[in-house]
Amino acid sequence: MSGEDAPAQQQNAEEQKQQQETKTPAESPKTESKPDPPPTSASTEAAAAAAADDTPAPAAEKAPEEDTFSYRALVLTGYGGYDKVKLQVKKGKPALKSGEVMVRVKMCGLNFADLMARQGLYDRLPSPPVTPGMECSGIIEAVGEDVTDRKVGDKVLVLNRSGMWQEVVVVATTHTFLMPEGMSFEEAAALPVNYITAYLMLFDFGHLRPNQSVLIHMAAGGVGIAATQLCKTVNDVTVFGTASASKHEVISQGGVTHAIDYRTRDYVEEVRKISPKGLDIVLDPLGGSDTHKGYNLLKPMGKLVSYGAANMLSGQKKNLFAVAKTWYQQFSVHTLSLIQGNRSVCGFHLGYLDSETELIAQAMAAVMDLYRQGKIKPRIDSTYHLEQVGDAMRRMQERNNIGKIILTTEPMKEEEKKEEAKKDEEKKKDDKKKDDKKKDDKKKDDAKKEEKKEEKKKEEAKKDDKKAEEKKEEAKKEEN
Amino acid sequence: MSGEDAPAQQQNAEEQKQQQETKTPAESPKTESKPDPPPTSASTEAAAAAAADDTPAPAAEKAPEEDTFSYRALVLTGYGGYDKVKLQVKKGKPALKSGEVMVRVKMCGLNFADLMARQGLYDRLPSPPVTPGMECSGIIEAVGEDVTDRKVGDKVLVLNRSGMWQEVVVVATTHTFLMPEGMSFEEAAALPVNYITAYLMLFDFGHLRPNQSVLIHMAAGGVGIAATQLCKTVNDVTVFGTASASKHEVISQGGVTHAIDYRTRDYVEEVRKISPKGLDIVLDPLGGSDTHKGYNLLKPMGKLVSYGAANMLSGQKKNLFAVAKTWYQQFSVHTLSLIQGNRSVCGFHLGYLDSETELIAQAMAAVMDLYRQGKIKPRIDSTYHLEQVGDAMRRMQERNNIGKIILTTEPMKEEEKKEEAKKDEEKKKDDKKKDDKKKDDKKKDDAKKEEKKEEKKKEEAKKDDKKAEEKKEEAKKEEN
Repeated sequence: MSGEDAPAQQQNAEEQKQQQETKTPAESPKTESKPDPPPTSASTEAAAAAAADDTPAPAAEKAPEEDTFSYRALVLTGYGGYDKVKLQVKKGKPALKSGEVMVRVKMCGLNFADLMARQGLYDRLPSPPVTPGMECSGIIEAVGEDVTDRKVGDKVLVLNRSGMWQEVVVVATTHTFLMPEGMSFEEAAALPVNYITAYLMLFDFGHLRPNQSVLIHMAAGGVGIAATQLCKTVNDVTVFGTASASKHEVISQGGVTHAIDYRTRDYVEEVRKISPKGLDIVLDPLGGSDTHKGYNLLKPMGKLVSYGAANMLSGQKKNLFAVAKTWYQQFSVHTLSLIQGNRSVCGFHLGYLDSETELIAQAMAAVMDLYRQGKIKPRIDSTYHLEQVGDAMRRMQERNNIGKIILTTEPMKEEEKKEEAKKDEEKKKDDKKKDDKKKDDKKKDDAKKEEKKEEKKKEEAKKDDKKAEEKKEEAKKEEN
Repeated sequence: MSGEDAPAQQQNAEEQKQQQETKTPAESPKTESKPDPPPTSASTEAAAAAAADDTPAPAAEKAPEEDTFSYRALVLTGYGGYDKVKLQVKKGKPALKSGEVMVRVKMCGLNFADLMARQGLYDRLPSPPVTPGMECSGIIEAVGEDVTDRKVGDKVLVLNRSGMWQEVVVVATTHTFLMPEGMSFEEAAALPVNYITAYLMLFDFGHLRPNQSVLIHMAAGGVGIAATQLCKTVNDVTVFGTASASKHEVISQGGVTHAIDYRTRDYVEEVRKISPKGLDIVLDPLGGSDTHKGYNLLKPMGKLVSYGAANMLSGQKKNLFAVAKTWYQQFSVHTLSLIQGNRSVCGFHLGYLDSETELIAQAMAAVMDLYRQGKIKPRIDSTYHLEQVGDAMRRMQERNNIGKIILTTEPMKEEEKKEEAKKDEEKKKDDKKKDDKKKDDKKKDDAKKEEKKEEKKKEEAKKDDKKAEEKKEEAKKEEN
């Protein structure tokens, strides 16, 4: 099933835009009386302060500006399903502070953290209403005071805590990186989160060296493909990659030595068959019981890097059972176990590193260098319009992608919209059918349950009869 | 207080030797009827098997050989105080299996694990009676079949799971390493455990790079000094080292940037003053509450390496309270905490790596290279005769050493023995005085307690009187 078949959840942007020309959407009533705050305010100090007290950076006050300036933005209006991310129009030109730049966004990257955030499972995204998105690419449109290392017209990629899924973003220059010659905007939007994550996990925590072995879960996902490519920059590294069978050809071509279909095989057994002593590095985005398995697969001096809890995501809305189960099975380790096994357990999440500008800059420089040498190249799975963000998220959630899912700020053409609308109708019908089927199934189930109950009652009645007879017989025996 | 002042606990070796010429010591009655088993049997297979099922490698059967062959060996006769390690004489030439060499030992290294082992707190040492010791240096005296990379006369250092504290050892060649030109036997015995440990912790788990900061506990100990020297091989590394004040001059000269007296200062506060953001690497040999402190001192992408539980050692015999407390406070961490902090927790112990010959060989080659370049040089604190092993252990236990404590197999001279005997007498007297003083103090304490009890009784009697009077007054009032 591909993302295109999924029912669309987002509002029709054009309709909404027209509505907003006259009134503010119900989800963000604040924007009615005054111009929008700048889309993001990620000066280094603000980000550092935010990181320190763990509350979102306050939106900076700004003077009203040109009223004609408006831009489209995706806004998470509340926690829940795909339809909670809506396309809205923000008005008013954001003010630029010293050290900041304004970027006209071309492409945005989609990440697992965005899916978690929508369900209210990611504490680094400020509370709704808020614009999600940790990365984008685009062209610098304006620079603030004291900005000397960026100029209008520079092509940049941007890495930020949130707020990147819109047409215009304002960020500290330290969060922008010049795009190398020959890099497309899609690639630039696909690179920051996945490659920095994979790079720091493999080379800083993992200390990957020649002849080592690495297990990469979700090897066809964004981080998975980035990690595979980075493994191949080191001599003779054996890569075990899990993915469903239909993706094996692609990931094998991409550098995975042993592709494992986790749906039909026990990956622990498969790894042990080939590498009985275990693994040097396990990258674990799943959490829960998979972290335990990964830990037990480590060789002496092996490193497990836990970088997510994808097992918590089951369905488009928060699944309390999946969350509770993953939480309950969350891995916890005692130093004595680590000492006796000579093992390392690491935790990684780029979202908590947003104030570490120097560290990120160093990793980014190394990654860009590898790109220029042709050793890495982001693989784009698919590109969606902002209007189609629901489809894009569904594709990722249902793990149908091979590589990065991108959102483009380019507006949809009229014909496309009409087609989309038709599809939407079909999807709605489909959904209704599914719902009806579900209801029907439920009715059938209920009927079956009722039948079973009846049978049970009958059986119990029989048992009672039997007991009564037994008693009678006993009474007879006693009489004799 | 230096180790030399401590009362000697070991048996007089010469006396014991003479005894053994006619009878077997009480501690190892098995040796009476048949020749001793080979001092150690650490062929790679045996070691691997032992590592796999976690039981000590069985002593290989051997045919009786020249009866004139005998050698002195330290033997742990049971768990307990310093006196549990006794000097004995083993008889019969150990048989050499294929791939093994026999080494005439010159010097042995003393490690914290040996102290733990004596108290029964180290599960990598086979049960007593057993010869402890993980490292030594010496000259190859015989080679087994198929040994081509070692020859009689080669100077080697040896790293092994146990059994190194004796005059003759038999080990797999893979556990021996040729001594570089110019290295003394003391240095060679001081190098393996401390430098391999420090090297793998800093460079494999820690991934130490220029401009980083490292906290080294017990910076004047064997691993502490090795780690400090290895830190200095990387540009601009800041080393925080804890040690008592009297050792600060030496460790500062050795490369510690900020020496902290943990006895009079809170090291967490001291580190925060200088490095408010925290540390890149914490090496933790202490365990218990110090592991928690170390973890909280980590920067994002910081690594804590736990490699012991020295806090369990309090006094020469097993202190159940210290063990229980350290155990109770043992650090345990949840992956979620690691993810949110972008941190790594590692466990290291060389004793559990004895079957990882390739890993050890690589690390040893790197360490030897640094030695040849003059970048590292083991610091010898003191050298003791085998007869003085109790003093040596006490010196380490009481943390009086700066650098490595070495045991030499060179026999004590007659005059030395006489002096030692005198000292022993004095020490015994000293101990008796101390004991008497303790008893006296206890009596005084008891007397004081008795006095206090009396006073309390008197006070309570007074209170009772007072209450009685109050009651009388109340009764009077009521009457009125």
